[in-house]
Amino acid sequence: MKAVGVIGLGAMGAPMARNFHKHGLLHAVWNRSPQRAEAVATETGARIAKSPADLARDCDFIVTCVSRDQDVIDMATQLAQGIQPGAIVADTSTVSAATAREAARLLKDKGAHFLDCPVSGGTEGAIKGTLAMMVGGDAEIFEKSRPMLSAIAAKVVHIGPTGSGQACKAVNQLMIAGVYEAVAEAIAFGQSLGLDMQRVVEVLSTGAAANWVLTNRSANMLNMDFPLGFKVALHHKDLEICRAMARDADGAVLPVAERMLANYEELMRQGYDDEDVSAVFRLKRGEHT
Amino acid sequence: MKAVGVIGLGAMGAPMARNFHKHGLLHAVWNRSPQRAEAVATETGARIAKSPADLARDCDFIVTCVSRDQDVIDMATQLAQGIQPGAIVADTSTVSAATAREAARLLKDKGAHFLDCPVSGGTEGAIKGTLAMMVGGDAEIFEKSRPMLSAIAAKVVHIGPTGSGQACKAVNQLMIAGVYEAVAEAIAFGQSLGLDMQRVVEVLSTGAAANWVLTNRSANMLNMDFPLGFKVALHHKDLEICRAMARDADGAVLPVAERMLANYEELMRQGYDDEDVSAVFRLKRGEHT
Repeated sequence: MKAVGVIGLGAMGAPMARNFHKHGLLHAVWNRSPQRAEAVATETGARIAKSPADLARDCDFIVTCVSRDQDVIDMATQLAQGIQPGAIVADTSTVSAATAREAARLLKDKGAHFLDCPVSGGTEGAIKGTLAMMVGGDAEIFEKSRPMLSAIAAKVVHIGPTGSGQACKAVNQLMIAGVYEAVAEAIAFGQSLGLDMQRVVEVLSTGAAANWVLTNRSANMLNMDFPLGFKVALHHKDLEICRAMARDADGAVLPVAERMLANYEELMRQGYDDEDVSAVFRLKRGEHT
Repeated sequence: MKAVGVIGLGAMGAPMARNFHKHGLLHAVWNRSPQRAEAVATETGARIAKSPADLARDCDFIVTCVSRDQDVIDMATQLAQGIQPGAIVADTSTVSAATAREAARLLKDKGAHFLDCPVSGGTEGAIKGTLAMMVGGDAEIFEKSRPMLSAIAAKVVHIGPTGSGQACKAVNQLMIAGVYEAVAEAIAFGQSLGLDMQRVVEVLSTGAAANWVLTNRSANMLNMDFPLGFKVALHHKDLEICRAMARDADGAVLPVAERMLANYEELMRQGYDDEDVSAVFRLKRGEHT
């Protein structure tokens, strides 16, 4: 593969494009709002494509990074209008496994390949290139893609067939939901005890309670300031996907997911849809009144 | 300080004694059941004290590592019968802040000092000397003790006055409870989706869902085998302490703690009191039927 194109230059996609550029791989970019494409192009010298189809004409490895299931289908549909046979589309969005399978089908009709490649590690992981990436798709296409994917992620693991990257990401989103609630409740509890929470966070970060959220998001909680990050409304959407997947798989209910869905619904009712998910601390602090 | 004595040579205390020995600090040991004292003494050359009071006579830094609040009070009472003025007792048990204050009072009457020094990091942390230690007590006594405490813990943080080490540990125990439930529920969910869970654990361990439990206890869950570790019955006791502390502090209810208390009560009803807390996975797998 020679020429990488990146579509979707938001909080995750823009730093991914910059990391491809650092590895000498970035060829073209496209974004729905052109200002973001111009910013990345000015910085990297990448070509600004006129459309996804235009980008597909001279890129053989295309990374998409969008928000919603319908965006992924739209991008795959538009890419299919210009894509070269043998080209690979790696979608780093978090969407359903069914969406991944549909996107793969749209591209396969044109002789192109699709990998579902959702990532975890936050905006800081995207900037540093230290993301964890869980990949679904054909094993051979995965191996061919690994050098490109390694430009944006420190850990790249092939999970299984198309859709299994998204299924793995659903497991990740459920786990992190529970960790957020645990960290938020524990920090609010520590504050109610009158402890010096800077010291508490320092020591807890190195013992058996250690976790990414504590290390990277407890400062938001202690400062009562929740900049993005990862939006409440998006994590709520992901947990609804988890709920539906569990019901489809075996009818199980996920108590941790259900409680965080309720927490996020309360946050959204209060107007905090666009804050970082660490804002769940607002509710936990509210319990100590 | 020259001579360290260790009381309580269980899964945590025995490796602590060995680490003091490695640093040339271990002088004497005592344990309720003498076989464990003999095992450590044979290995390290430490003197086996006849009683806690006997140990106190020639040790100026005494570490206790027992299970229950009453054990800590009993040890402090017995140590007070032989302790030297200026000696320091560092209790690494997890008990209430009130117990820590009572133990400190018993020793202060004899001119000796007390630090509550609960630890986190599991038996593997005790063996490797990589524990996190949260310390309550006088700042000057803490600084004097730091070289000894650093022999058994990689991170030693002074939280505040007597009892605040235990209060910090309560925060730790609440946080880890929620993380255990999140990891257990997410792994059971992933299995229900038919994913290769070795690969899922590998990739999730490096992203935003990363946590100590996932890294160190998910194998128990995947193997459905829950060796100690940390007993269900002990963590249940700790969460009851958290519940009581929250009520005393401001009347708040801790939803994460309440749900894990219910989970542990169900495990104990099924006879799993003595398994490692990762056994909460039994209930989560049971939800997928």
